[in-house]
Amino acid sequence: MEGEPTLRLRIFDLNCWAIRYLSKRRQERVRLIGDKLRQEGFDLVLLQEVWSEQDYSDLKVKLAGCYPFSHYFRSGVIGSGLCVFSRFPILDTLLYQYSLNGYPYMLQHGDWFCGKSVGLVVMKISGIIFNVYVTHLHAEYCRDKDAYLPHRLVQAWELAQFIRHTSKAADVVLLGGDLNMHPDDVGIRLLRGWTGLRDAFAEATRFEGCKNGCTLVPDNCFTDKSEMLPFPLGIRIDYILYKAISSFTVKCEELKTTTGPDPGMAIPFSDHEAVMATLHIQRQGQPAGATLGTADLALADVVTEARTEVGVGLRAAQRQRYFWGRMAVLALLLLLLLAVAALGTLAGLGAEQPFPKLSFCLLAFFSFTILVLATGLHIFHTMEVKMLHGTEDQMWMALRALQERPSEG
Amino acid sequence: MEGEPTLRLRIFDLNCWAIRYLSKRRQERVRLIGDKLRQEGFDLVLLQEVWSEQDYSDLKVKLAGCYPFSHYFRSGVIGSGLCVFSRFPILDTLLYQYSLNGYPYMLQHGDWFCGKSVGLVVMKISGIIFNVYVTHLHAEYCRDKDAYLPHRLVQAWELAQFIRHTSKAADVVLLGGDLNMHPDDVGIRLLRGWTGLRDAFAEATRFEGCKNGCTLVPDNCFTDKSEMLPFPLGIRIDYILYKAISSFTVKCEELKTTTGPDPGMAIPFSDHEAVMATLHIQRQGQPAGATLGTADLALADVVTEARTEVGVGLRAAQRQRYFWGRMAVLALLLLLLLAVAALGTLAGLGAEQPFPKLSFCLLAFFSFTILVLATGLHIFHTMEVKMLHGTEDQMWMALRALQERPSEG
Repeated sequence: MEGEPTLRLRIFDLNCWAIRYLSKRRQERVRLIGDKLRQEGFDLVLLQEVWSEQDYSDLKVKLAGCYPFSHYFRSGVIGSGLCVFSRFPILDTLLYQYSLNGYPYMLQHGDWFCGKSVGLVVMKISGIIFNVYVTHLHAEYCRDKDAYLPHRLVQAWELAQFIRHTSKAADVVLLGGDLNMHPDDVGIRLLRGWTGLRDAFAEATRFEGCKNGCTLVPDNCFTDKSEMLPFPLGIRIDYILYKAISSFTVKCEELKTTTGPDPGMAIPFSDHEAVMATLHIQRQGQPAGATLGTADLALADVVTEARTEVGVGLRAAQRQRYFWGRMAVLALLLLLLLAVAALGTLAGLGAEQPFPKLSFCLLAFFSFTILVLATGLHIFHTMEVKMLHGTEDQMWMALRALQERPSEG
Repeated sequence: MEGEPTLRLRIFDLNCWAIRYLSKRRQERVRLIGDKLRQEGFDLVLLQEVWSEQDYSDLKVKLAGCYPFSHYFRSGVIGSGLCVFSRFPILDTLLYQYSLNGYPYMLQHGDWFCGKSVGLVVMKISGIIFNVYVTHLHAEYCRDKDAYLPHRLVQAWELAQFIRHTSKAADVVLLGGDLNMHPDDVGIRLLRGWTGLRDAFAEATRFEGCKNGCTLVPDNCFTDKSEMLPFPLGIRIDYILYKAISSFTVKCEELKTTTGPDPGMAIPFSDHEAVMATLHIQRQGQPAGATLGTADLALADVVTEARTEVGVGLRAAQRQRYFWGRMAVLALLLLLLLAVAALGTLAGLGAEQPFPKLSFCLLAFFSFTILVLATGLHIFHTMEVKMLHGTEDQMWMALRALQERPSEG
């Protein structure tokens, strides 16, 4: 089996920002993306934020010739937005929906409604088994006071665990997507440390594109300039990560990002820049070996750091649960009080009314609304507490495993 | 490595029916279960419906001596109810929450609030890697008109897919739990066919317990006798399933169920009977080989049957989504009409009131409530449609893979 030719794989990853009714010039951009993909003939295309199934179907029809295989991952209210186009057959798929993903009442952020997930497609290319993951984690709306950090960390942890548990028969693991984390954020370090995945940008022999590999840049005409003020060069939040598991080596020969519109075009493909990697995969004599172990201590620090943040989120969620639970009880008491007053009026003193009907009705309406909302929020935050608590537990188990490893070896 | 001694593993599985405030004599029964487990010294204990974390903690303390390792899976509002006790170290865990699990407004059934899931624990016993799965699927409340069949089938499919994708590095796979399906139901056939798992009851050399291995029997003092009328012998819905993946063989030497209370006890452990299996695991020379392939045609039939049922559920969900969407629009129109009427009264003819304030308030309250509820239900059924549709797609892909297999071989 040795001395086999190198497999060269070209991958395209893009957050397409294709939200129906909201994203600017969506249909035009989806057309441009389709043209680009057809023209360049990548091997594998990983897209995020393709919220409209119609857009996916249009792309599928357009790309049927050069990417005969594709999969759209459905989840949440709007959909996961994730899809994959491939030159090679897709053998199997699996979707894992993250247990936490923001709050349904944060309508202006809307992440909750997308059912953020990680999608897995299994492929066999030249006899090599690829597990390809595509994902999109919860957005960061305010870096200084990031209320969603615990949720994003739970997602990063679940992503890492999902990859570890499902990739054991794979020869090569690829992950592409908008992780909504800067390269040094704890979530990225956790994901990379816990899975052994390597960052194509950091490993690339050649790089071409936006400075520092940024994928959200102020120069892009669709980005919100005010949000980019603290980052004049932009930020890197879209990634292609990879690793070889069995007796293979993967090398990133070239990494590119788009830099605004392609030549001859008026607009860029999206508010994000696309990431394009050329990977070389080669079979080698002996197994690549576990890359874990040497860096166990550093990894334990990362897990501890992540666990602390999850703990902060847990306490916040517990406070919210308590607050809304108490509110629901108060609303219920008020409703009961009103019911007693109404019954008293009806039964005892029909003529004498304690207060006008209109105020009475409004108060009843108000307390009923509070009761329904507060009960819903109490239930929601109870689930949040459960999942944060569960993740804290799992991370603790991981820490124990990391600490026990040297003594076992 | 050949000629190694056989590993003998004793497994206990029970749906504990330990719902706080609702289950009869819960604390007493949890104590009895703890006593039994301590006395018998199983190797592995898989429990369901341990809804109270306090019950789990009590069991953990009580069993610390004989089962030093344990894990409780948290999810949903109440919890998954799943936990594992083990004589051997638990190396890793993962929880997968089923994407569909009944309806939040079916309060009397309550399955939705449990966040039904499958829990995975990874263990290494005598050098053999075990992937142990514990789960509890959606209950069947009415066999003749089972509204939850599509949801349970989605769960059975997700369970099978989760096991397939996560067990590739395991030597032995074990699944225990309350599957809420009779042995010949399409969901069980799908699960067994798609994963290659074997039924300990069917394979056991010796059996002892309730007739036909039933685990929900009319003789049990806690079961609902009216529900058991069509099944005078009881039904078998709790299972221990297993398979060897690599070069191992697994044999079920003995299967037992409890038959009501243990000798000297007044009450049984639960409304379900416990299932206890003794498995023999032996390393053998050559890999056991894929058991799939020979039965591909039969499996394709099962997947087709399951897909048809999922399709029925999809159409029902689409109807619900449409109905509640229309209802929400009507309620919104009524609210707008009331607002216009109110504004008209206030602006134009202050004295002349079109109708009494009270009726007006009640109508506004009514339409607002309908609007909130209908919007919530529309969103919920939209998610349901997405997941049923996604499962239909995945099953179609599985069918294609099954059909293509012979031509590849």
